[in-house]
Amino acid sequence: MGHFLDNTFTIISGPCSFEGQDQIREHLDCLETSKYLRAGIFKLRTNKDSFQGLRARGIEQMSALKVDHNFCLVSEVVSMQSLEALKDVVDIIQVGTRNMYNYELLKELSKQSKPVILKRGLSATIDEWVQAAQYINSDENQVILCERGIRSFESKYRNTLDLNAVSYLKQKTNYKVLVDPSHGTGNTFMIEDLSKASMAIGADGILVEAHFNPAQALSDAHQALTLPQLRGLIQNLNSLAPHFNKKVVF
Amino acid sequence: MGHFLDNTFTIISGPCSFEGQDQIREHLDCLETSKYLRAGIFKLRTNKDSFQGLRARGIEQMSALKVDHNFCLVSEVVSMQSLEALKDVVDIIQVGTRNMYNYELLKELSKQSKPVILKRGLSATIDEWVQAAQYINSDENQVILCERGIRSFESKYRNTLDLNAVSYLKQKTNYKVLVDPSHGTGNTFMIEDLSKASMAIGADGILVEAHFNPAQALSDAHQALTLPQLRGLIQNLNSLAPHFNKKVVF
Amino acid sequence: MGHFLDNTFTIISGPCSFEGQDQIREHLDCLETSKYLRAGIFKLRTNKDSFQGLRARGIEQMSALKVDHNFCLVSEVVSMQSLEALKDVVDIIQVGTRNMYNYELLKELSKQSKPVILKRGLSATIDEWVQAAQYINSDENQVILCERGIRSFESKYRNTLDLNAVSYLKQKTNYKVLVDPSHGTGNTFMIEDLSKASMAIGADGILVEAHFNPAQALSDAHQALTLPQLRGLIQNLNSLAPHFNKKVVF
Amino acid sequence: MGHFLDNTFTIISGPCSFEGQDQIREHLDCLETSKYLRAGIFKLRTNKDSFQGLRARGIEQMSALKVDHNFCLVSEVVSMQSLEALKDVVDIIQVGTRNMYNYELLKELSKQSKPVILKRGLSATIDEWVQAAQYINSDENQVILCERGIRSFESKYRNTLDLNAVSYLKQKTNYKVLVDPSHGTGNTFMIEDLSKASMAIGADGILVEAHFNPAQALSDAHQALTLPQLRGLIQNLNSLAPHFNKKVVF
Repeated sequence: MGHFLDNTFTIISGPCSFEGQDQIREHLDCLETSKYLRAGIFKLRTNKDSFQGLRARGIEQMSALKVDHNFCLVSEVVSMQSLEALKDVVDIIQVGTRNMYNYELLKELSKQSKPVILKRGLSATIDEWVQAAQYINSDENQVILCERGIRSFESKYRNTLDLNAVSYLKQKTNYKVLVDPSHGTGNTFMIEDLSKASMAIGADGILVEAHFNPAQALSDAHQALTLPQLRGLIQNLNSLAPHFNKKVVF
Repeated sequence: MGHFLDNTFTIISGPCSFEGQDQIREHLDCLETSKYLRAGIFKLRTNKDSFQGLRARGIEQMSALKVDHNFCLVSEVVSMQSLEALKDVVDIIQVGTRNMYNYELLKELSKQSKPVILKRGLSATIDEWVQAAQYINSDENQVILCERGIRSFESKYRNTLDLNAVSYLKQKTNYKVLVDPSHGTGNTFMIEDLSKASMAIGADGILVEAHFNPAQALSDAHQALTLPQLRGLIQNLNSLAPHFNKKVVF
Repeated sequence: MGHFLDNTFTIISGPCSFEGQDQIREHLDCLETSKYLRAGIFKLRTNKDSFQGLRARGIEQMSALKVDHNFCLVSEVVSMQSLEALKDVVDIIQVGTRNMYNYELLKELSKQSKPVILKRGLSATIDEWVQAAQYINSDENQVILCERGIRSFESKYRNTLDLNAVSYLKQKTNYKVLVDPSHGTGNTFMIEDLSKASMAIGADGILVEAHFNPAQALSDAHQALTLPQLRGLIQNLNSLAPHFNKKVVF
Repeated sequence: MGHFLDNTFTIISGPCSFEGQDQIREHLDCLETSKYLRAGIFKLRTNKDSFQGLRARGIEQMSALKVDHNFCLVSEVVSMQSLEALKDVVDIIQVGTRNMYNYELLKELSKQSKPVILKRGLSATIDEWVQAAQYINSDENQVILCERGIRSFESKYRNTLDLNAVSYLKQKTNYKVLVDPSHGTGNTFMIEDLSKASMAIGADGILVEAHFNPAQALSDAHQALTLPQLRGLIQNLNSLAPHFNKKVVF
């Protein structure tokens, strides 16, 4: 069947960091038929003393979860070692904003066949971003671009989500383009607005952070939706989708 | 009745510069029932030798046009003198991006009762923009904010339209908020996408440049829609509006 | 004789806002032979309720001061009215960052013969800045450019002083170029470093804020040097100047 | 003895890419007593089809050169593999702007004892940069920060060299701070100005690109000084240094 088809709007949701099996079970229960789950097992943190992800222990626990549950795991690689470590558990590989220019890692990703979501660098131009994608592209894999906000002078939002890029890329390239309104704004109260705008502008889906208890999240607590909020968001996007000739998949 | 009601999505269109009566007649004919027309009579140009608007002559011609046609004229003031000169012909006053910080002009605008569209400064923070609006605000008038793109490192588009600002302002303030996708992107091929996204995100309307012959426009030729393109845009926004509980007015 | 000669490094100092005669007398006393004084009589403030300058009252008091003291007053025009009001008291006219794009005001300045210091707009490109200068330039007057920091993502300093612009302009144009390290950084502890770097890079002088009692300044208190700090700064620049074939004038 | 002492201003020069033994011999001959040489053996290029460095072959040739010549090699690591490969030939390790956020690589660098020059990310805040340094810092090694220009809206220079950062870091942290005016501006005609300003502001040295034949350089040809230009630059900085209580080392 394949992912990211022309007429689908894909909602990939989950916690910023994978913190334990209960967290994921609650998430999957809430969405019932969830197909796509994002969860960071390796984390890149500005501060070296911040939580760096469950890593080896997380892979083990995630493998156990996948025995009983059916979902596509989207998770970030942060190095060649993590790519090797994740290979049996991850379905769609994410390259984070901090590694968009890590060309040695991108070259490695061109040698494998899983789809790769490539986030835009913090202040990457569109040309740099597309050229980074070309490092990964091969006959075997698919690269999906993900706009996640650029750095600007404005401090009301964590980053400045650049929807112009989505319009530009959808018209000038053949890449599928996702939007991450969670990192893009850093404000839960803006996520639904930006998600609807993403659909209206022609994006192929969103990557959105949700947590069964945001206040206790080990990372990015302030930008995670609660599970009921996530369910509401999906419902609203689902109602809107037909007017944009799209079908929501999540 | 009033402008910019809660459930309306207002499309203000017209040429960047007012160049003559035929230009406007063709525009109005094309739209048939157009209520809102934008046309610059005083122009602020980066280069002192560029066309600076028809000015006195333009006011005379515009007055003549208004005798036979029924429309609200949106036009930019560039100084106190131009405010005085425009007062009998303009219905809604526009303050351009270059004058957002021109507080002496803003104070003058607080003394009159016409609605004022205040464009965001090139790199104005939301706080600065809202505080500029407070210079104009009075019991007698209404200030409408207009997002028109901020300056960033990206060169694929003339400016980086910041839809985040619309979401933020609609939720945190009581201002009506318009979007100018023409200046916001500088690319005609992106205008429809960004207009739809503006509606989806909750904007109260758009300000869009159109010209009966873009190739010969005296300013901003590259970002003006043709009249058929404008009509198509209005039609598409009109179809979309009910799904966002809006009614298109233009 | 004239200002801003090729081999001089001009230090223009004074308070952000003119607050009263004692303030200026203390300043002049401290510097003994000060030739250049900056003091704002009309102020442009982000918040409409902030102190807007002494205005008419300030002009009166400044005139009185000039009877007894010999200095060149550098002061900002904020509108055509303020230009008219200041004309008997100001020696060198300053156009602030907020008015760099106010072309109607710039045109008016081309009709008079006093030197004009044109600050760079908050996010103005070098091309826009030079073209703004061309609005003012005439056979009668001199335009001096003043770099005062651009807007960036960095929040450790109020603005990001762009010394690259000084090097570029000095090599590619004939304009004299000043630097304003006070607004450029907003941090008193950085002013001396940036002043020395300005001299080293080839700037023609600096515009620096000082106050006899910064803690009580009515505007920009946090970036004003004390008078002893200012005296120390002048001394240090004076020692350095010969190594750059410059003579300090202040 | 050690590198980067308090009273030294260190000039590290060389070609962007190591292209062959003759290139380096000409460079060393020109400078006679050069102690510090920069030369990229592994290159990170925006376009995957651009020259990626001599890599294994370069290490072999560089080793041969070091048998006959006495210099400290500064060269960039681009991955853990390249760190391993370079370990016998490199004296001071450089982390480029694209890898400042590559925390997995930074952690690896904390386990070795060679000095590490950490360039600022393209739009990294000072806080992020200092925190990245803390990933590398250990009891065994020394981290030196290198300002190399941030991304802004200005297109006259490749990047906007941010000397404010140098002043801030020298006063608020204990790190040695270098400046790279070659990448910082991308214009050879600006390099001397910015180098002098770097010395004036308190930087501990510069990293500058030079090539025996810039027109034929395999990367960054437009920003490389010729060898005579480099010799002139060193001479001029040498004359200036005593006035800043510094001694030039190169």
